[in-house]
Amino acid sequence: MINVGVIGFGYWGPNVARNFNASPEARLTAICDLRPQRMLVATSTYPFIKSYTNPDELIKDPEIDVVAVVTPVSSHYDLARKALLNGKHVFVEKPFTINSQEAEDLIELAAKKNLKIMVDHTFLFTGAVMKMKELIDSGELGTILFYDSVRVNLGLFQHDVNVVWDLAPHDFSIMCHLIKEKPVAVSAQGVSHYNGDFEDVAYITVYFNNPHLIAHFHVNWLSPVKVRRTIISGNRKMLLWDDISADEKVKVYDRGVELKIHTSEEHVHNMLINYRIGDVYVPKLEPTEALKKEVDYFIECLEENKEPFNNGQAGLMVVKLLEASNRSIANKGHLIKLTE
Amino acid sequence: MINVGVIGFGYWGPNVARNFNASPEARLTAICDLRPQRMLVATSTYPFIKSYTNPDELIKDPEIDVVAVVTPVSSHYDLARKALLNGKHVFVEKPFTINSQEAEDLIELAAKKNLKIMVDHTFLFTGAVMKMKELIDSGELGTILFYDSVRVNLGLFQHDVNVVWDLAPHDFSIMCHLIKEKPVAVSAQGVSHYNGDFEDVAYITVYFNNPHLIAHFHVNWLSPVKVRRTIISGNRKMLLWDDISADEKVKVYDRGVELKIHTSEEHVHNMLINYRIGDVYVPKLEPTEALKKEVDYFIECLEENKEPFNNGQAGLMVVKLLEASNRSIANKGHLIKLTE
Amino acid sequence: MINVGVIGFGYWGPNVARNFNASPEARLTAICDLRPQRMLVATSTYPFIKSYTNPDELIKDPEIDVVAVVTPVSSHYDLARKALLNGKHVFVEKPFTINSQEAEDLIELAAKKNLKIMVDHTFLFTGAVMKMKELIDSGELGTILFYDSVRVNLGLFQHDVNVVWDLAPHDFSIMCHLIKEKPVAVSAQGVSHYNGDFEDVAYITVYFNNPHLIAHFHVNWLSPVKVRRTIISGNRKMLLWDDISADEKVKVYDRGVELKIHTSEEHVHNMLINYRIGDVYVPKLEPTEALKKEVDYFIECLEENKEPFNNGQAGLMVVKLLEASNRSIANKGHLIKLTE
Amino acid sequence: MINVGVIGFGYWGPNVARNFNASPEARLTAICDLRPQRMLVATSTYPFIKSYTNPDELIKDPEIDVVAVVTPVSSHYDLARKALLNGKHVFVEKPFTINSQEAEDLIELAAKKNLKIMVDHTFLFTGAVMKMKELIDSGELGTILFYDSVRVNLGLFQHDVNVVWDLAPHDFSIMCHLIKEKPVAVSAQGVSHYNGDFEDVAYITVYFNNPHLIAHFHVNWLSPVKVRRTIISGNRKMLLWDDISADEKVKVYDRGVELKIHTSEEHVHNMLINYRIGDVYVPKLEPTEALKKEVDYFIECLEENKEPFNNGQAGLMVVKLLEASNRSIANKGHLIKLTE
Repeated sequence: MINVGVIGFGYWGPNVARNFNASPEARLTAICDLRPQRMLVATSTYPFIKSYTNPDELIKDPEIDVVAVVTPVSSHYDLARKALLNGKHVFVEKPFTINSQEAEDLIELAAKKNLKIMVDHTFLFTGAVMKMKELIDSGELGTILFYDSVRVNLGLFQHDVNVVWDLAPHDFSIMCHLIKEKPVAVSAQGVSHYNGDFEDVAYITVYFNNPHLIAHFHVNWLSPVKVRRTIISGNRKMLLWDDISADEKVKVYDRGVELKIHTSEEHVHNMLINYRIGDVYVPKLEPTEALKKEVDYFIECLEENKEPFNNGQAGLMVVKLLEASNRSIANKGHLIKLTE
Repeated sequence: MINVGVIGFGYWGPNVARNFNASPEARLTAICDLRPQRMLVATSTYPFIKSYTNPDELIKDPEIDVVAVVTPVSSHYDLARKALLNGKHVFVEKPFTINSQEAEDLIELAAKKNLKIMVDHTFLFTGAVMKMKELIDSGELGTILFYDSVRVNLGLFQHDVNVVWDLAPHDFSIMCHLIKEKPVAVSAQGVSHYNGDFEDVAYITVYFNNPHLIAHFHVNWLSPVKVRRTIISGNRKMLLWDDISADEKVKVYDRGVELKIHTSEEHVHNMLINYRIGDVYVPKLEPTEALKKEVDYFIECLEENKEPFNNGQAGLMVVKLLEASNRSIANKGHLIKLTE
Repeated sequence: MINVGVIGFGYWGPNVARNFNASPEARLTAICDLRPQRMLVATSTYPFIKSYTNPDELIKDPEIDVVAVVTPVSSHYDLARKALLNGKHVFVEKPFTINSQEAEDLIELAAKKNLKIMVDHTFLFTGAVMKMKELIDSGELGTILFYDSVRVNLGLFQHDVNVVWDLAPHDFSIMCHLIKEKPVAVSAQGVSHYNGDFEDVAYITVYFNNPHLIAHFHVNWLSPVKVRRTIISGNRKMLLWDDISADEKVKVYDRGVELKIHTSEEHVHNMLINYRIGDVYVPKLEPTEALKKEVDYFIECLEENKEPFNNGQAGLMVVKLLEASNRSIANKGHLIKLTE
Repeated sequence: MINVGVIGFGYWGPNVARNFNASPEARLTAICDLRPQRMLVATSTYPFIKSYTNPDELIKDPEIDVVAVVTPVSSHYDLARKALLNGKHVFVEKPFTINSQEAEDLIELAAKKNLKIMVDHTFLFTGAVMKMKELIDSGELGTILFYDSVRVNLGLFQHDVNVVWDLAPHDFSIMCHLIKEKPVAVSAQGVSHYNGDFEDVAYITVYFNNPHLIAHFHVNWLSPVKVRRTIISGNRKMLLWDDISADEKVKVYDRGVELKIHTSEEHVHNMLINYRIGDVYVPKLEPTEALKKEVDYFIECLEENKEPFNNGQAGLMVVKLLEASNRSIANKGHLIKLTE
């Protein structure tokens, strides 16, 4: 039985607590929130837990094996570091940390202490992303040609971060999960209108070692319509993920193009183009709550001593992409290389 | 009566000829095409025209007032230049020329000869673009915050240009027509997969003097779904142009956001956010054929000695944006400033 | 202050209780449910209420002014009758009763006792229906030409009623609310496939005194797609209500047709047709919870001694339409006249 | 080589002529239209044909094997009868005739003369209908539960028929083609608003020998939106045909419901419901022009002496359904049995 303490019981913490509590292999042991009224809700929902108002005390509780850090990003580093120093595994909200240096420190510390970090990129455990992962890994799409993501709507403005840090962590983590090739550089553009220098419209392009692959992200708080669409085209099939669609979130298109450049005797180039337009299919998606699957997977990783795919390294890559995006935006699209 | 000669009777030339022929103020006088079978179609449709197989002869025909150049872009400069030198007004297909130097030469020559150039950016005369122009000029949208355009589908690959030169001329010309502020720089990204170095997926960001305005374009030949959508958000209203929609091409959203940053005595910043979500309306669009309106407008400009808004300068700006896009793509998003 | 007792705390009862509790003019005084575990939920949510397990006791409680009957339809008559006999106003779930005789008895009894009945046709208080009512009453649609409603999806099968009694009460109540003319007859068709003789697919046509008006309803538990669409065409404007749409539930079309039959000297009839296709507009809808508005309206009716529009008579008309539908289905569309 | 004469060269005749002309096994031999200006178009398109202004002469032309009757429905009987009497096969527009008596006469005459009749129900040869036929015949949908068709839009009003005779022939012919069970009775409703007694809104229900099958049709000239949707639910799979969709006309849903009524010892009925929600798939449709396939099929039937499925009997069934619909509408839904 793995004992779990949850720090932060605001908007998302209750979901994390509920799923750890529901897991047969884990026990929700303690909850900590600085706000008394939130602790009241916590203890009335889970009368059996230890309740803490000081996170340091929860972290030092010898009974606890895992600390779930569900607090604002600025406190992630400090809380996760203390948890690791006290021998606890860490489940931490995304984005992992406020910069890559912090993320690297935590990864190093966890390795030294032989502990595990899972960054809560919940989207990776949705039925849609799991199905896309399966389609891509099985080779059904063939070689990936591009990845195009649009996540736009009206609001909700955040006080302390721009639209990139607010919305792009979802898409960066999904893209890194689905695409095997490693990102190497970023060019990004953005503008701000309302909240000082915090961009509310931004475009990010990610380059890979493979010069024929590109990923692009449009994040926007000022769109009159809500769009959540990702296109992933492969040379065998193409897919569209529309997360707003009630019934048809993922569509797989048996479509493609074949070009043959034919050079004749007279050195004239002729391009023979063949378009393939076949069936479309809409796979049924696994309906289980994503966070439940993620929490179960974390427990499984701990029990079997497996490294989770959404570990600190995965969280670090997202932070690097966020950092590079902001730096490129400030320099009007200047190419920012990702450091190893 | 204005006499018009049309050079090029392939895919688009017949439409240009038909509309000049239908204009009460113009007379379709001559047609030229190098291909005898195309001339056969031309003369059987318009038995009264003079038929030429050498464009130089048409250009020298003293009866002709206007030469319409409806040929591949590589020949625009040479034909338009000769026409101007022979004292003819020029109606020329888009893109205007293969580089900005050619465009500038033609503009200068036309000015010297006191002749008019109209670049055939037909889209500017569609009901949708005319309505959007009216909405923006009247101030209904307020200050424009961003312009976002997506023009993607599967194919059709062009032999000799990349997807930017194929698709973006439409969107660049529309954007320049709708947005009063002048573009000053471009950052663009793209990849190629099938036809040598010709990109089939590209993203272009346009910067303006106003640092709070941005325009972005996604052009793509490898998308499983066809999308033709432009979002233009203003601080008063926002609009969506979906050119694929049968009935609701332009939608105007009475939506917006108001943020007030409030600094309290304790120097704590509080952001007060107010979202406005009002009615949506779908204006009826003018159904007249766009090319008919454009041709009538050209005749009107000639008769009243007015400079058309889609003149050589407008065509030049599109060519500059295309040039800059290609240069930036080759340099992975490096900012390319537009020259005056 | 009006004291309210709620009988039935299953699926919908908690919503009724919550809204009466939230009303400043009403006091949630008592709750009754036969199931102890439901009473546990009730008393832990509202520790201050009187809890009853026998509805007769709640009904006799002298402190109570209003009894809300939120139980299966078969018990409505008995509970409502006792409540009226004990001098209580009645708020009762839809459908009002299992036949029109019961409904008429209750209406008569309420009149005699000078008490009010409100039948909980919640849909009438949604932003969409309120907006449509406003549009029709103001004359914006002109004379109504037809009313067409489709409410289909896969499941949810009910044990004890057919699809008409399950789904059509919504649409019958809305239609009667929006259309001023009185229904006079019904022709209906239906088939059953799974649950004995209970139809799972049905079509109902309602005739009016006005022979040029028709209303039609398609209710279906076996459709692969979920559709909730109503078209109401008037001779001035037309509207579409799509209740599944997130943003554009009600659309108003400035569309219509004008026909003139012209008889020439030669006695040849010529029909001159003129189609009008104007703007479309999507009005913003009131977002308040419908049940809250309904409960507030009931309190207002009690305080001001006004007859609610969704009174017993309105509930009776829905029951008459349901009865007539079933009778016509059993007779393959035979016209069933509604009795006065 | 089969020689074909076409009578009627208005809107549809040119398409019929073009496809017979394109068939390698047929020869377009003669065209007849009463209007000289139409004959001018015919002879300039097909300079080699014999041109007739009197249909009787074309019909008597001994060279001709097939007469295509592409004229208003009121003249079908007379022209087709003369053609059969003169030993010609007949290809005739839909609806076949203005009443079932005429249709029966023609069928009898053709049988006596050993000639073939094909009624031009072009829709049966579209990719969508062919795919649905294949899906149903292969048993992929299982037993058909219902057939629901909606064909509504604004206009186009016809002068001389109601909306049933204008729009329902398409859907009746498709339904009869797809559903093996024979229609036995009709109940229909409709109202008129503009053109005398000609209904512009109508609903038609078709009953079958199988009491668990139903088909329903909504045809309407007064809808603000254009809808062309048919739902066909089977007990194994369900399909949606949306003829307006550009890319996804036919969708097949692996969805269904299984109910088990379980009677316990205490004679309590329990209904166990199981919903199956699986993949959706959008089959690629054959893109060939429907009329081309129909004409080729007619030629094939003549050469191989096969009875076409869209023969006189099929045309007669559509006429019977139209007749019965009108009769039922006039009697407010009264059940009209179809005669054998």
